[in-house]
Amino acid sequence: MGDSHYTPTFERLPEEKKKRLLTVAKKAFAETGFAATSINFIAASAGISIGSLYKYFRSKEDLFLTIIEQGRDLLEEVLGGIVNAPEALPAKIERLLQAAVSYSEKDPDFVSIYIDCTTQGLAALAARLSKSIESIAAEAYRKVIMEAQGRGEIDPAMDPGLAAFCLDNLLLMLQYSFGCRYYRERLALFAGPGASADPALVITTTAAFISRALGYRAAATSARDT
Amino acid sequence: MGDSHYTPTFERLPEEKKKRLLTVAKKAFAETGFAATSINFIAASAGISIGSLYKYFRSKEDLFLTIIEQGRDLLEEVLGGIVNAPEALPAKIERLLQAAVSYSEKDPDFVSIYIDCTTQGLAALAARLSKSIESIAAEAYRKVIMEAQGRGEIDPAMDPGLAAFCLDNLLLMLQYSFGCRYYRERLALFAGPGASADPALVITTTAAFISRALGYRAAATSARDT
Repeated sequence: MGDSHYTPTFERLPEEKKKRLLTVAKKAFAETGFAATSINFIAASAGISIGSLYKYFRSKEDLFLTIIEQGRDLLEEVLGGIVNAPEALPAKIERLLQAAVSYSEKDPDFVSIYIDCTTQGLAALAARLSKSIESIAAEAYRKVIMEAQGRGEIDPAMDPGLAAFCLDNLLLMLQYSFGCRYYRERLALFAGPGASADPALVITTTAAFISRALGYRAAATSARDT
Repeated sequence: MGDSHYTPTFERLPEEKKKRLLTVAKKAFAETGFAATSINFIAASAGISIGSLYKYFRSKEDLFLTIIEQGRDLLEEVLGGIVNAPEALPAKIERLLQAAVSYSEKDPDFVSIYIDCTTQGLAALAARLSKSIESIAAEAYRKVIMEAQGRGEIDPAMDPGLAAFCLDNLLLMLQYSFGCRYYRERLALFAGPGASADPALVITTTAAFISRALGYRAAATSARDT
């Protein structure tokens, strides 16, 4: 990859060691945020010297960006599997929401790091970070929308970019709601403590909300409604 | 208010002085985040001694919470005006989105502070903060949904709490997208740079998305569609 942020020395480490170091760093960034996390703390937590750490990453920023790229690669892999499947739109949306929730529950550290990336303290990195992460999702969802429009499944008049934006807004908020304490409390306040404890209910309700918003349900049921 | 976080000494200050101090503190918290903002820096920026500042607020946390309460009071006032107006649902939703965007553009510091509140670094405050801020929105939107259901305007089968949750998810993301750099870049990546520069287009598209998701459009146009 042309945009890798680690050194050839890191590249040559055994996979197990690379993975352990990135997991330790991810946890530290997730818990205290980029600004408040010291690279000395990460080195100590990983049981390596600060000198070695600087042989792998030239700066704290590069280490952080390597973790972001890892998240981006995972996102790309997960989205690819869902977006290219030969399913109708409602099933695809439900699978996207399920994936969002299950990855957030499995790996809340990525959710915390993502939210940290969006804060004003990291504004200087914002453009690079957003281009790296958001382009994957934006392209995948625009494709889903345009293909469904092409098949006549949903409203052909919707702007695919803005439809993809609304879809991702709801997906992102489910990731936050199941991967981060503040948003989990918020979900409980909106929909009762039962909702926080029942991801399947939140997923099916949100999926139905999206399908109908895109004009799917209207097309499928207008004859029956009349 | 029983939950105020300032001292009687602060209460007795002239309005102008109170306002100036809170504005300076808000800007500092917005730009560097709660954790990285020192109370000494705030006192110096406001041109008062640290001793005086501690006579007004017992801790940095109390000063922060006072600013949050200020944002909550504004939210309550703005929502009250819209929610209780005798309008049909689509007009109400559009006004909510307009208010979200215009307050974010006018006062992006509140958006930055809100996002900071949701980070893991403030997890210890998360429950108190979310209860204070989110309850206002949750109650207002549930009321909007249930009244529209009562008038037969939208799908009566939707759970009002989860419908309010979806509505607020989209509202919140518009606030982020017009009040914060990271999300502004993200909007441009999803919908093109034109969308970031055209809040009215994003608002009307999102409003139409929500109205249809709630079953409004389906009911209003199913006869024409058939």
